Amino acid sequence: MNRIYLDNAATTTLDPVVLDAMMPYLTTNFGNPSSIYSYGRESRLAIENARKAVARILNAHPAEIFFTSGGTESSNTAITASVRDLGCKHIISSPIEHHATLHTVEHLKHTGEAELSYVKIQPDGHVDMAHLEQLLSESKVKCLITLMHANNEVGNMIDIHAVGELAKKYNAIFHSDTVQTVGHFPFDLRNTYVHFITGAGHKFHGPKGVGMLYINENIKITPFIQGGSQERNMRAGTENLYGIVGFARALQLATDNYEKDSAYIKSLKMYMKEQLEKTVADVSFNGDVNGRSLYTVLNVSFPKTEKSEMILFNLDINNICASGGSACTSGADAGSHVIRAFAANPNRMAVRFSFSKINTKEEIDLAVAKLQELI
Amino acid sequence: MNRIYLDNAATTTLDPVVLDAMMPYLTTNFGNPSSIYSYGRESRLAIENARKAVARILNAHPAEIFFTSGGTESSNTAITASVRDLGCKHIISSPIEHHATLHTVEHLKHTGEAELSYVKIQPDGHVDMAHLEQLLSESKVKCLITLMHANNEVGNMIDIHAVGELAKKYNAIFHSDTVQTVGHFPFDLRNTYVHFITGAGHKFHGPKGVGMLYINENIKITPFIQGGSQERNMRAGTENLYGIVGFARALQLATDNYEKDSAYIKSLKMYMKEQLEKTVADVSFNGDVNGRSLYTVLNVSFPKTEKSEMILFNLDINNICASGGSACTSGADAGSHVIRAFAANPNRMAVRFSFSKINTKEEIDLAVAKLQELI
Repeated sequence: MNRIYLDNAATTTLDPVVLDAMMPYLTTNFGNPSSIYSYGRESRLAIENARKAVARILNAHPAEIFFTSGGTESSNTAITASVRDLGCKHIISSPIEHHATLHTVEHLKHTGEAELSYVKIQPDGHVDMAHLEQLLSESKVKCLITLMHANNEVGNMIDIHAVGELAKKYNAIFHSDTVQTVGHFPFDLRNTYVHFITGAGHKFHGPKGVGMLYINENIKITPFIQGGSQERNMRAGTENLYGIVGFARALQLATDNYEKDSAYIKSLKMYMKEQLEKTVADVSFNGDVNGRSLYTVLNVSFPKTEKSEMILFNLDINNICASGGSACTSGADAGSHVIRAFAANPNRMAVRFSFSKINTKEEIDLAVAKLQELI
Repeated sequence: MNRIYLDNAATTTLDPVVLDAMMPYLTTNFGNPSSIYSYGRESRLAIENARKAVARILNAHPAEIFFTSGGTESSNTAITASVRDLGCKHIISSPIEHHATLHTVEHLKHTGEAELSYVKIQPDGHVDMAHLEQLLSESKVKCLITLMHANNEVGNMIDIHAVGELAKKYNAIFHSDTVQTVGHFPFDLRNTYVHFITGAGHKFHGPKGVGMLYINENIKITPFIQGGSQERNMRAGTENLYGIVGFARALQLATDNYEKDSAYIKSLKMYMKEQLEKTVADVSFNGDVNGRSLYTVLNVSFPKTEKSEMILFNLDINNICASGGSACTSGADAGSHVIRAFAANPNRMAVRFSFSKINTKEEIDLAVAKLQELI
């Protein structure tokens, strides 16, 4: 049986079209983008064209787009700069953020550089907006709101405009980890009140090791990684030339095919949900599965039994790739901090299935049949 | 006329053998190394094999090798951790370090986290070791010594063992930016007193966007980039899988051919030096060109004339790639802080030529003939 890859929220295949775009820079066009001679200028041009493409797609200014080594570095940069450069002495986050956010805000609390509050999460996995406003209104110091656009484990999405409006009202800085949505949803950053968003190439069929940080032009921060004058003095280190070219090409490809791909992927998600409901007893779903949610993620809740506790292991044996939560923490094996935050039930097993344009209905059928057997 | 690339200290071509090793991970083997199923384990295995290969080559333990996004991130991590985690309240560095070091140590001075001293540089561009010992002996607090193994502009190398012995004697932490020497010289880290060294794949025919940080097993630091549990909780963010595979393959290739390649490249450097001495009036060389110096770098000092001031521009027009100094700062165009630190002479123009295994004697002949014409 061929492998069925249903963990596209962890990482995606590199699209061959994207690799084609990268190949010249992996072979002949190798110049250091900071070198002033022709070889260097060609590389610089490729990077600046990538920046313009990304900016155009997100409706931002090219000067607001910075390339990094990935989503984690981008979030570290945004959060740390908000505290150290922008005067935010109170961080408001949520317990369901990715560890790139959680470990950074906890660190800043630990060093005493900022106080830290977590907004309440409702039983459907959404942020309690009334509580968010309460935290903002009660704060005596400038706040950083850091809330992910879409949760990587259960798929729930915040209303980024509603959070932005609160940020505006209370003069807060707003960072959103958009790693699961850049390349999957349209953005209109000129008309969105947000100071920082992030992206990671490998989440939308681009390369690993490259990411993006949007920094709103109205704010000025200092670099997180210091050294050379790359990225207009904002991110030092020789640029990941092919990675940046690949990031932009992948984002362009995703944008060109957004309507077709998103409809198709959503149909796979909903089909799997329906089939599971039909065939597996006592199945349910974590998060707001029918509501404001990623079309790429389906987090399934199975009753805990001797068999279901072995489900990821048995899926793997049967060549089906799915996960218990974030790949970034799967080594830790302490269960999901996300599910625990709003749907704690020791008698349930959570499995995340996440889809891409490459998956097929036949793969879903095979996965559901296998799940029926394994549960 | 074909391009003659004599700026290999800025970046090198990606060796086709290295690209071949990366290709499986750019195509079929795309799993997230943190995922626990087979796709993920294959990726994890590739990374751990890369780590073992790098450790073996450097005579270190695999647990001492961490992959990063490049040399700059590695140096930022080492220096910041020395101050914040290891109690170094006095940094001793030199004015000829790369900006990845200089901007980081200046930042830590600026924030008040550490005092900062610069060791004197002798007229031959070497660190004044007596002054280094004086600074260490007079310090009342724990010191970090951060001195680059080889200077990227003039090629001068420190005696890493002599500096290590001083670090040991004065209980200092020792970080060395080895970006110009990893992949170019043998290392024996088990028998070298050093706490941190760094590497960047693209300096030795490996990929851009990936680097290495060696952290001696006797010290414990916290991550610079926080988030997921990658790199044994030391460097968060989805791993640059193909970059890491390429880094290790390039280092292996460099090591396998070290004797042949280094002798050949050194012969090119010395040949160019001799030919320039023969053909260009009043030429001299910055740094300890015949002494403890990179075999890859020749920093030429020309008398300043109307013609020589245009030399980089005219070399570029003639398809010869060379640089005024570090590529990382070439955008700034403020002249070289390295040359200024020990050989300040407003009547001289410095041009760095740097060589690789791919260069030929014929290219040197063409470059020298052109220089003769242009100066």
